[in-house]
Amino acid sequence: MDSNFLLQTETAERLYHEHAAPMPIIDYHCHLVPQMIAENRPFRSITEIWLGGDHYKWRAMRSNGVDERYCTGSDTSDWEKFEKWAETVPYTLRNPLYHWTHLELKTAFGIDTILNPSTAREIFDACNDRIANDPTFTPQGLMRRYNVETVCTTDDPVDSLEWHRQIRESGFDIKVIPAWRPDKAMAVENPQTFRAYVEKLAEVSGVDIRTYADLVDALQRRHDFFADNGCRLSDHGIEEFYADDYTDAGINAIFDKVYGGTELTTEEVRQFKSCMLTLFAEMDHASGWVQQFHYGAIRDNNTRMFRLLGPDTGFDSIGQFNTAKSMSRFLDRLDAKGHLAKTIIYNLNPADNEVVATMLGNFQDGSVPGKIQWGSGWWFLDQKDGMTKQMNTLSLLGLLSRFVGMLTDSRSFLSYPRHEYFRRTLCNLLGNDVENGEIPAEELPRVAQMVEDICYYNAKNYFRF
Amino acid sequence: MDSNFLLQTETAERLYHEHAAPMPIIDYHCHLVPQMIAENRPFRSITEIWLGGDHYKWRAMRSNGVDERYCTGSDTSDWEKFEKWAETVPYTLRNPLYHWTHLELKTAFGIDTILNPSTAREIFDACNDRIANDPTFTPQGLMRRYNVETVCTTDDPVDSLEWHRQIRESGFDIKVIPAWRPDKAMAVENPQTFRAYVEKLAEVSGVDIRTYADLVDALQRRHDFFADNGCRLSDHGIEEFYADDYTDAGINAIFDKVYGGTELTTEEVRQFKSCMLTLFAEMDHASGWVQQFHYGAIRDNNTRMFRLLGPDTGFDSIGQFNTAKSMSRFLDRLDAKGHLAKTIIYNLNPADNEVVATMLGNFQDGSVPGKIQWGSGWWFLDQKDGMTKQMNTLSLLGLLSRFVGMLTDSRSFLSYPRHEYFRRTLCNLLGNDVENGEIPAEELPRVAQMVEDICYYNAKNYFRF
Amino acid sequence: MDSNFLLQTETAERLYHEHAAPMPIIDYHCHLVPQMIAENRPFRSITEIWLGGDHYKWRAMRSNGVDERYCTGSDTSDWEKFEKWAETVPYTLRNPLYHWTHLELKTAFGIDTILNPSTAREIFDACNDRIANDPTFTPQGLMRRYNVETVCTTDDPVDSLEWHRQIRESGFDIKVIPAWRPDKAMAVENPQTFRAYVEKLAEVSGVDIRTYADLVDALQRRHDFFADNGCRLSDHGIEEFYADDYTDAGINAIFDKVYGGTELTTEEVRQFKSCMLTLFAEMDHASGWVQQFHYGAIRDNNTRMFRLLGPDTGFDSIGQFNTAKSMSRFLDRLDAKGHLAKTIIYNLNPADNEVVATMLGNFQDGSVPGKIQWGSGWWFLDQKDGMTKQMNTLSLLGLLSRFVGMLTDSRSFLSYPRHEYFRRTLCNLLGNDVENGEIPAEELPRVAQMVEDICYYNAKNYFRF
Repeated sequence: MDSNFLLQTETAERLYHEHAAPMPIIDYHCHLVPQMIAENRPFRSITEIWLGGDHYKWRAMRSNGVDERYCTGSDTSDWEKFEKWAETVPYTLRNPLYHWTHLELKTAFGIDTILNPSTAREIFDACNDRIANDPTFTPQGLMRRYNVETVCTTDDPVDSLEWHRQIRESGFDIKVIPAWRPDKAMAVENPQTFRAYVEKLAEVSGVDIRTYADLVDALQRRHDFFADNGCRLSDHGIEEFYADDYTDAGINAIFDKVYGGTELTTEEVRQFKSCMLTLFAEMDHASGWVQQFHYGAIRDNNTRMFRLLGPDTGFDSIGQFNTAKSMSRFLDRLDAKGHLAKTIIYNLNPADNEVVATMLGNFQDGSVPGKIQWGSGWWFLDQKDGMTKQMNTLSLLGLLSRFVGMLTDSRSFLSYPRHEYFRRTLCNLLGNDVENGEIPAEELPRVAQMVEDICYYNAKNYFRF
Repeated sequence: MDSNFLLQTETAERLYHEHAAPMPIIDYHCHLVPQMIAENRPFRSITEIWLGGDHYKWRAMRSNGVDERYCTGSDTSDWEKFEKWAETVPYTLRNPLYHWTHLELKTAFGIDTILNPSTAREIFDACNDRIANDPTFTPQGLMRRYNVETVCTTDDPVDSLEWHRQIRESGFDIKVIPAWRPDKAMAVENPQTFRAYVEKLAEVSGVDIRTYADLVDALQRRHDFFADNGCRLSDHGIEEFYADDYTDAGINAIFDKVYGGTELTTEEVRQFKSCMLTLFAEMDHASGWVQQFHYGAIRDNNTRMFRLLGPDTGFDSIGQFNTAKSMSRFLDRLDAKGHLAKTIIYNLNPADNEVVATMLGNFQDGSVPGKIQWGSGWWFLDQKDGMTKQMNTLSLLGLLSRFVGMLTDSRSFLSYPRHEYFRRTLCNLLGNDVENGEIPAEELPRVAQMVEDICYYNAKNYFRF
Repeated sequence: MDSNFLLQTETAERLYHEHAAPMPIIDYHCHLVPQMIAENRPFRSITEIWLGGDHYKWRAMRSNGVDERYCTGSDTSDWEKFEKWAETVPYTLRNPLYHWTHLELKTAFGIDTILNPSTAREIFDACNDRIANDPTFTPQGLMRRYNVETVCTTDDPVDSLEWHRQIRESGFDIKVIPAWRPDKAMAVENPQTFRAYVEKLAEVSGVDIRTYADLVDALQRRHDFFADNGCRLSDHGIEEFYADDYTDAGINAIFDKVYGGTELTTEEVRQFKSCMLTLFAEMDHASGWVQQFHYGAIRDNNTRMFRLLGPDTGFDSIGQFNTAKSMSRFLDRLDAKGHLAKTIIYNLNPADNEVVATMLGNFQDGSVPGKIQWGSGWWFLDQKDGMTKQMNTLSLLGLLSRFVGMLTDSRSFLSYPRHEYFRRTLCNLLGNDVENGEIPAEELPRVAQMVEDICYYNAKNYFRF
């Protein structure tokens, strides 16, 4: 993995080194913990960074026959866990983890050695040494090292955003902006959790929530509060799009039913979600935000492990939902009222790629380039093949030139090399096209601009950062 | 885009230049307006040709942030519209529009310059000059220039076919054949439109339509009329295949209900469509026609724009329908009665590719090579990647050798370079196979024959042109 | 098709010749007839071997316009059938049949000539000569020639396994192990066939089956009997996964209803299948077997031909089922009880690839490497493109290193070159990665081990052969 890793042509090399690599990073969707940025404490060890919460690695280890103790167990040491990961790495050849691991070692630690059982101890010690002794090896230091300009975290409406405020007031030169993720306010399928959530919401909003109208009131206040704190975008994690017909009276009744103790029907749950999704979309439009939808995951497939470890621990997978018509109806209703905000749609099942790529075009209204966006390869698709398919399909069915590009979606401060990975993949695609004559050589300046746009300027303009 | 555009190997070059390029064009499915061919009037301007009705270009412009006025507006000049298109072209890199635009400039106008804002005026003027002064720059002239032998238009059963007759009688040396597209006769989900359509049908057929039996009678007369006018094939635009169970009594009742003012249930709509689809299939078989099915689009997604501009204006997209079992049942019922006509199936969602490719084999009855065909990459899939996937999958799961090949599906007289595009793609695939040893070099004569067959002879034999 | 067929790089060549080719074959899922192995009679002719039961070839011939008489007819001679196949072969270019045909001619008969009408007679005679005169040209001889170590057949619970016993007792040096395929015991949607099957089951198990409990008892006895005869794995052919809720009382009632003459509802059929699928999974876990699921086919699409020829005659195709959630629920229920056996899932629709590839990870419990496996490209997908997609997707979303690799799923003793085909494809993928730098050259020893593992050792360890 030398400086021309993934770059198969000279054109690709030039595009990458001269136009992609120098661009700052806008990481417009991630799951970094703002408290960690604000406090900016040094890390404990490479194990904390790498294996503390990385369900990708845990999945790989479990697939490799590694006992759970070495993934999430509390009775194993940092070294023991690292060692098991090092044993697993040679079996991850062809998986993005192999490349990510070594890109992270190289770009963060300057280590070029391949990780495997025979190099594990040496690498473990070298990393920990660096972590302990390099004062720039902190959350903020790492963000600076990777030339990050802006990040958007992912935050619940009940969040106080105090850490975002502290970061802002500290004079930290990288923008750390909250994003509104109100999934729990829709999750009426689990009444108990929903009621508990509404209680919290009532508390932070100062609204006594007794009716659906109160709920809307409380959420609107929080939406305003987020806007006041610099929020520019929302995000929604949904299995499918919800665009069932519903009435105000019906929604009021469903809300009351949640408190009445009777179980909701599937239709009622869908109606409520349909209503909330539209409500949020209206709020986002009114505030001039960008709305994001991540759809298509089946989460928490393993009940046994969910009980032990909770969500986001490596037991999610790609679902199958015929949601094209609902997606269309949802967007159409907003467009018909002139209330369709800028929108980014992320699908998890690549079998939906062409559906999403062509859905965009139905709602591009000429008001702004690329108003409706197709999000970069998400989660399981965040690898060379997934990115390539997304970019090729977007190219063929829409305008790649207007793409807002890469985001990490990550919990880790070491994930920025994924932007490098993306950029190399992008430059390689374009380089091939130029060299095989599908893009005329005369267009090279346009291609170079396109690279800079997709890596940086498109996002900057789209989100108005 | 020189003479070896898309041809990556010497074998591909030879196959293309010696075997593909010389073949005449049979465009067995298109949306040309026969009146334009019959009248053969010169065009007004390049803007009329390119932007008068091309929803592909409109979509790209809207995605690029161009206001609707410059797409479909009546208050903007030809130059203003052309200029906006020229501004958009640089952003279409990697989209087929970029290649089509330049292939059309080159093959129709002899222009090799890349279209962008700085060349826009010069190209606009040069094209319009040519259009105004070259007497061969007419519908018929263009068809001759591109070596077209036969085209099949797409016509409603109520069409008088008078323009087809005029063309025939004029002695024009290119065959212009009507094709039967009775979608409106199935569209019972919209009773008002349906009733209006039935009225028109009654008028042209001379049948007083009061019952379902009358409807069948009227349609059969039109079918016969089309056959008398040289029609050899039908076409059907459907979301999914319909093969629900129904009874004669049920269908009669549904027909009556359309006139009774009560709304049909979803089941009734599906039953009626199932019945009509089978009826048409039976007619086609009796007449020895080929039946075509284009399935899987979601049309008119944008209600606001549909009200402004009507259908086919760039607001359609790829749907998701689990229609494999219905498709099977529909074909099986016909086969069981010995009434299955030659059939071409086009899917819009490439996630269905393998479903369609393997469905063919269930109903190949050995009576004729390639009796059941999988249509070439349709609409959004009519580009290098879509064509390649279709041809690769057909190769692996069926017999590419028996493929009836390319069609434009287009409304434009400048779309024939898409045949060139297809042929280059085909020759490139085969060239690669020969050069990497997957096809033995000894088979070159067979490969050359295969190229000629897919470009021309297969369609000629299949449709009996 | 020389010795470096499909191997595009030097690394690929080295990997194949030094590491893949020398490995013995473990064919852990096939449809060989054990009686043929036991009796070890010479074949009658190349036509018997090639066209006696090969529905792949029949499909190709029918697609090529060959009359059914030459496929399955009893009034045509061996030569006539062979001749029609030879006429079809030139039209199969790019279809795996073309490669299989010539690989089989080469590896089994030493014939390098391309099969077509002009070589047909010569090849027919040469093959038949060899078949008649070479005493090693028998089922056992062919298995030895291809270096087969173990095969698993596919057997109904009512099978006596007498031929397996005879083979075992004969001292034949290749292991021929039965596999448990209880599809008929679930097929309650056809009560008549089901009842007839239960009768047979009662007979061979010695259990008088009057209730559902009796059925379970009988099946358990047969399961034990299979285990006693060396069985290590089961297999299930299902359209989709079944994981509906059901109760013991409900299942008892459904079983009784099958004998009461009333038709089962769709829900009842699904409940019964859900129950049986879980029952079998529990049995497999208790016995330490591997369970296999082949899902997603639509079978017997052509009623007319089904009546003439029965099942497995070339009228099946790829279906569309949104079965991800059921698959998850099925596996989760077993996992929750600690009863999830080693599992291999095969999907027929490649649009499901990512669903299956990510489902694995939800149930990898760290007890053994690669506990949940994604089966190699099945049936229509058993070709270079299908294999490549499966291996690439598995690589990206799981651990290719732990893959148990190839199986033939075949009825023919000449199908072993498909292992060669698979191995060449695997080595070519890895060779490309090494040569383009995606796998560092230092990892070559690891890659070589990975090749040997996937070709042989992983299966050996996984199945404990």
